[in-house]
Amino acid sequence: MSSSEGTGILASVTGPHDLRGLTSEQLTVLATEIRDFLVDKVSKTGGHLGPNLGVVEMTIAMHRVFDSPRDRILFDTGHQAYVHKILTGRQAGFDGLRQRGGLTGYPSQAESEHDLIENSHASTALSYADGLAKAFQLRGEGDRHVVAVVGDGALTGGMCWEALNNIAAGTDRSVVIVVNDNGRSYAPTIGGLADHLATLRLNPSYEKVLDLVKDALGRTPLVGAPLFEALHAVKRGLKDAIAPQAMFEDLGLKYFGPVDGHDLAAMEKALERAKRFGGPVIVHAVTRKGYGYRPAEDDEADMMHGPGAFDPVTGKLTAAPSLKWTSVFGDELVELAGERPDIVGITAAMAEPTGIAKLMRAYPDRAYDVGIAEQHAVTSAAGLAMGGAHPVVAVYATFLNRAFDQVLLDVAMHKLGVTFVLDRAGITGPDGPSHYGIWDMSVFGVVPGLRLAAPRDAQTLREELREAVAVTDGPTIVRFPTGTVPPALPALRSVGGVDVLAEATRKDVLLVGVGSFAHLGMDAAARISEHGYGVTVVDPRWVRPVPGALAELAAGHRLVVTVEDGVRVGGVGEAIAASLRDAGVSTPVRVLGVPADWHPHGTRAEILADLGLTAQDVARDVTGWLSELDERAIPGELSNFTA
Amino acid sequence: MSSSEGTGILASVTGPHDLRGLTSEQLTVLATEIRDFLVDKVSKTGGHLGPNLGVVEMTIAMHRVFDSPRDRILFDTGHQAYVHKILTGRQAGFDGLRQRGGLTGYPSQAESEHDLIENSHASTALSYADGLAKAFQLRGEGDRHVVAVVGDGALTGGMCWEALNNIAAGTDRSVVIVVNDNGRSYAPTIGGLADHLATLRLNPSYEKVLDLVKDALGRTPLVGAPLFEALHAVKRGLKDAIAPQAMFEDLGLKYFGPVDGHDLAAMEKALERAKRFGGPVIVHAVTRKGYGYRPAEDDEADMMHGPGAFDPVTGKLTAAPSLKWTSVFGDELVELAGERPDIVGITAAMAEPTGIAKLMRAYPDRAYDVGIAEQHAVTSAAGLAMGGAHPVVAVYATFLNRAFDQVLLDVAMHKLGVTFVLDRAGITGPDGPSHYGIWDMSVFGVVPGLRLAAPRDAQTLREELREAVAVTDGPTIVRFPTGTVPPALPALRSVGGVDVLAEATRKDVLLVGVGSFAHLGMDAAARISEHGYGVTVVDPRWVRPVPGALAELAAGHRLVVTVEDGVRVGGVGEAIAASLRDAGVSTPVRVLGVPADWHPHGTRAEILADLGLTAQDVARDVTGWLSELDERAIPGELSNFTA
Repeated sequence: MSSSEGTGILASVTGPHDLRGLTSEQLTVLATEIRDFLVDKVSKTGGHLGPNLGVVEMTIAMHRVFDSPRDRILFDTGHQAYVHKILTGRQAGFDGLRQRGGLTGYPSQAESEHDLIENSHASTALSYADGLAKAFQLRGEGDRHVVAVVGDGALTGGMCWEALNNIAAGTDRSVVIVVNDNGRSYAPTIGGLADHLATLRLNPSYEKVLDLVKDALGRTPLVGAPLFEALHAVKRGLKDAIAPQAMFEDLGLKYFGPVDGHDLAAMEKALERAKRFGGPVIVHAVTRKGYGYRPAEDDEADMMHGPGAFDPVTGKLTAAPSLKWTSVFGDELVELAGERPDIVGITAAMAEPTGIAKLMRAYPDRAYDVGIAEQHAVTSAAGLAMGGAHPVVAVYATFLNRAFDQVLLDVAMHKLGVTFVLDRAGITGPDGPSHYGIWDMSVFGVVPGLRLAAPRDAQTLREELREAVAVTDGPTIVRFPTGTVPPALPALRSVGGVDVLAEATRKDVLLVGVGSFAHLGMDAAARISEHGYGVTVVDPRWVRPVPGALAELAAGHRLVVTVEDGVRVGGVGEAIAASLRDAGVSTPVRVLGVPADWHPHGTRAEILADLGLTAQDVARDVTGWLSELDERAIPGELSNFTA
Repeated sequence: MSSSEGTGILASVTGPHDLRGLTSEQLTVLATEIRDFLVDKVSKTGGHLGPNLGVVEMTIAMHRVFDSPRDRILFDTGHQAYVHKILTGRQAGFDGLRQRGGLTGYPSQAESEHDLIENSHASTALSYADGLAKAFQLRGEGDRHVVAVVGDGALTGGMCWEALNNIAAGTDRSVVIVVNDNGRSYAPTIGGLADHLATLRLNPSYEKVLDLVKDALGRTPLVGAPLFEALHAVKRGLKDAIAPQAMFEDLGLKYFGPVDGHDLAAMEKALERAKRFGGPVIVHAVTRKGYGYRPAEDDEADMMHGPGAFDPVTGKLTAAPSLKWTSVFGDELVELAGERPDIVGITAAMAEPTGIAKLMRAYPDRAYDVGIAEQHAVTSAAGLAMGGAHPVVAVYATFLNRAFDQVLLDVAMHKLGVTFVLDRAGITGPDGPSHYGIWDMSVFGVVPGLRLAAPRDAQTLREELREAVAVTDGPTIVRFPTGTVPPALPALRSVGGVDVLAEATRKDVLLVGVGSFAHLGMDAAARISEHGYGVTVVDPRWVRPVPGALAELAAGHRLVVTVEDGVRVGGVGEAIAASLRDAGVSTPVRVLGVPADWHPHGTRAEILADLGLTAQDVARDVTGWLSELDERAIPGELSNFTA
């Protein structure tokens, strides 16, 4: 099981067509082989294990019933697409999964004609599906089916609701929505459970399915509460021989289910019915995340959702533990909450990965999981602040983009004290372009009154978080990258809030290192000094708005170089350049950062090297610019008046 | 009826407390007086008439049952708050409604302690309500009620879905959701209609309410289709004496209704029950938009939603017709659709105001109204483009912010040809800060591969729209302001895509007028010329990415000045400055535009004057900078290397 290709039946599957001739016994063997293959490969590379173990039979069934790529299979939150990749000729790529140059962790048009959506953000697939089905209809290709697989958690996202309303209106368009219901954080679909009670009551598997669902519900956090009641109502309804109206049918969507998502024959039958129906239809499949692999099935804390490399027998992660940014934040938030009863935490279905789980355990009444619902996370935070609380909304940097308008109007325009903590900011790595948190410093930089801090180490994270929650008249952002916190980097002194980390007698270049790039600045400075230049390295701590002290510092140097872990366009460096111009400081500015583009997956270090954001690169750039300056006079009064 | 205060009973109402002692006869008279007052005042100032005529009794009832401001009444899409303003001591302000320095068109904290949300964007109020109720609970003030009024149309927005899921989870928090159901474009709430059939069947008003709803449904566009079916199911259910489970109760929300929203006593009774319930509850009120004023009731095209000044007897608008930007766009889109069968249109519940209605009439199968659902509008457009169509998504500039992430990832990352047409871009005016479309050129400027055009007149709008829909490998934006199209402004010549509008022998200043500000540039140039300076005025047409020809043009001038109808921070001017620096052009750049701040309401001209964005101001700035330059040498090679 350590070769790069699957063995047995799996080895013979080079595309969906190879699934057609298999017997049900062979398919059962195939499902087991796929699970073994997944555990074997992902234990070495890391990746999304649990979700993919849960969709093995579902994916086989979809590829047997539908004719991809003529029919289109769309995966919401594309991390459920590994089995799809295995079945569409990409087994050999799994040794390089999420590695630089290797297979991506999400669908990829470049990899296969069977892939379409490359976005890893949740709750979008139904909207794509609606558009795609409309296009097929317009082209007279209405016989092409669009199949969208969406997790129950993703149904808490508002986009799904918007899409369901619209899909339902297209009664003559074949959109098959497969709800992959593993009982994680959802409420909406439960009404649908009741739809086919009449037939289900005659079916011995019904109690089993219901038990499975109840069991899954037991693990559901906050949002799940009304679910129990609804489920209870269903059982009561059953007893009273009343058939409740399903929510989906209220919307005009045909509903099939619930189906045991691990019963391949049942899944195929339901999908066949959905295909024949020819209109918008929901297939409600009940699955178990991690199915078939004990360490993932028993995984209360959901660590097997997307682990790093692990021991395939025990499920234990192989990486040595280290102090993560997330952990420092989570601990400090609990500290702050102990001191200030007004502090509350909000997460959008990512309590553990964002560190909010620590607050939940310490102060269960003061932490809210709102579901995969970033817009609601932000505006309910605005409401909390209006009511006198200070909310701390912790999300990945890439996901706050989903609530830009809410940050702008609902929080900033109302001048409310809400703190946003952006984890995984900057270049993230293996998750590829749609997970990169490189936009925040530009996009949120336009928000009036918003203050943004980029801590460089554990101590500044703690300090800046404290400063952020002390702000009462507008939004604050504290952003930090993925992974391990770098070593402490103490300041020599502070100038108007700007930390001076290194300085020399000569004042050749002021090197502004934003956030954790202060370390990059220090390393580069050491190299630049070898050429005889004097380097001052500073960390502005708060980069939006630009501290006035930077102009003062810049005025004493020949050159300013900024380096940031975010896009250059409209970023901190450009804001610093504009602020020097406004202050009448003529020192030239050079801006280093991430080009606004779609960068591939790889490790963070690899991507940064590709982008020329290493100490060596920065040192080379800076010494080059300085030597250019050496050949000229130092700009005088005239250049007061320059761009 | 032309005094600034109400007459009769209305004149005696200075706050909600004055409503308490009135008899039911007096309240009926009051409702009539309020309607007369609204028609009288809004006919002079313009404003949101229809929505407010529909909520007269509802608002009276809310203020009699709840204790504002201790209880909190939140209006979604605040344009329904006029009656609330009338009842909370602001009658005198209505002569200055939406005028500079006068009453705002939305709730305003500065105006009254009874106001809280100032955001005019739809579907946000339920999220605020959830947060506010959580805050009250945390502070031990759980006896304070939060009442959120939301229109049926706004329920199509995904944020409402996210909020409902979360509100339902707070079974011990008193959140009263008043659904103001005037039958405009919704599907979700209909299931709830069936909830209290048992009691309703005994109620003679039931058939009346149902008829009213059916009648309203008849006017519902595309999205409403499944509604008929659901309604049909309800009637069938009634016949079969089966009580269907309501969607809201599936979610764990108590449901009261439907209530005739124009029956004051019934409204009060329902609200009293909701208040006593003490948990999350829906009150479903059926109303008629424009109720009590014939021109607004009979208003199929919804022109009375937010008219300008009009004749109160006939309802005819008093402003002379003029050629609007919207109209030029709408006509050209129909032209293009006639030439290219792949072109389709998308609107988010604003078919008439965005001009998409013209396409709907010409090609009904090729225009989609997705509801108040900007996220779905964008991502379903991505799906349409994946299927071979070229979608044109027409929205107000302020609303595209709600789908930033979808433009970034779903469209741009997938390199899809989708055209966004942003109406009401830049300073809009009477609707105040949350309607200003001043963010787009900065925020969407970071999107890789996105191209943005700002036409200056009718002809360039037509041309640039054609150029936009010819792009197949990424998103395009065409943005223009509100109101009347300025006169044609033909180019003298074109340099690399940049239109030269005026030039002189002397090359003192290159004045870059973005979009309709090209006219401002021309007017300023005339004044600057009077000082003996030579001015070149250009319109870059496509401002993102910055045309390379600008560097070439800039190099031949002593100064570059940019002027744009958008925020300066991260805007077009700063992008031009950065692009000149990258090209090694040392000509100094000065950036004029809108400060990133919350600007008050007023006319567009008034606000622009306040911001110093008139020809006179620009001319004064430019001549000042030029005379500063006169006193110095022209920057030479050195300043190649400047910020």
